[in-house]
Amino acid sequence: MLILGIDPGIATIGFGLVASGRGQVKMIRYGVITTPAGIPLSKRLFQIESDMETLIGQLHPDAISVEELFFNNNITTGIAVAHGRGVILYAAEKCGVPLFEYTPSQVKQAVVGYGKAEKRQVMDMTRRLLKLDAVPRPDDAADALALAICHARSATSLLQQNPEAKSTV
Amino acid sequence: MLILGIDPGIATIGFGLVASGRGQVKMIRYGVITTPAGIPLSKRLFQIESDMETLIGQLHPDAISVEELFFNNNITTGIAVAHGRGVILYAAEKCGVPLFEYTPSQVKQAVVGYGKAEKRQVMDMTRRLLKLDAVPRPDDAADALALAICHARSATSLLQQNPEAKSTV
Repeated sequence: MLILGIDPGIATIGFGLVASGRGQVKMIRYGVITTPAGIPLSKRLFQIESDMETLIGQLHPDAISVEELFFNNNITTGIAVAHGRGVILYAAEKCGVPLFEYTPSQVKQAVVGYGKAEKRQVMDMTRRLLKLDAVPRPDDAADALALAICHARSATSLLQQNPEAKSTV
Repeated sequence: MLILGIDPGIATIGFGLVASGRGQVKMIRYGVITTPAGIPLSKRLFQIESDMETLIGQLHPDAISVEELFFNNNITTGIAVAHGRGVILYAAEKCGVPLFEYTPSQVKQAVVGYGKAEKRQVMDMTRRLLKLDAVPRPDDAADALALAICHARSATSLLQQNPEAKSTV
């Protein structure tokens, strides 16, 4: 199964494709979608959606794993990211790819085995599980790979997150 | 000039089309796009985007006027509305309609003449300016008409809101 992890955003959107099977995960590709700060929000959203469609068309994922949003501090940033996340979910739906959402603590639990793990621990375990020489850069791409691993492990263990998940696995 | 006002949301999105010219505004059509609560967020976003494209295709607006988001209280609701607003801005961009954004106080200033006007005053002045017998229902549709009027008055007085506005008027 090919799982595309997405770390949502407006300026930088991380993506990571992982192949999952027989309890193993393998990194296929990772990177970021970026949009310039100097253009109107609507044009950035258009670009994100367009790049998401291109990515899905190239990578043919069986599932998309995207982070849920939680904001304790910067609401302004949160509102901007939520705009971006809106078109990311839209693109997944438009392309007909089953969508799964995980909280940061679910990702930590699935990757490290501890829901309150440090970001550094998640990064390092992502690197180890994918048998990479170094932690993928930038962080957004590493976060996206962790999201893909989270779905791989959750799907295997039937720890489903939403009604869609139950119907597709 | 035909101006389509949009009051963003997830469950209910208000729209209102106003014809503007020679210092006058005339109501052409108003209503709401609604999505059911019981389906996944991605499907609601897909429906909103699809309905927005249909609406733009039917109404041929020259400009879209959409409310900026400000949240002082319910962040969870704000995040959901921002997802919806993301696909609304995307749809405007995709259809190539110039987009203008106004804060609630800019709408109050433009419609009532006072940036801290009560919601009831905005509703009543919207009714009067459009020469309607009653305040349009639901509130989301009335808010959308007020946004359209706001752009009509701002465009006339060259009180532009963003770089796009300056280049298109």
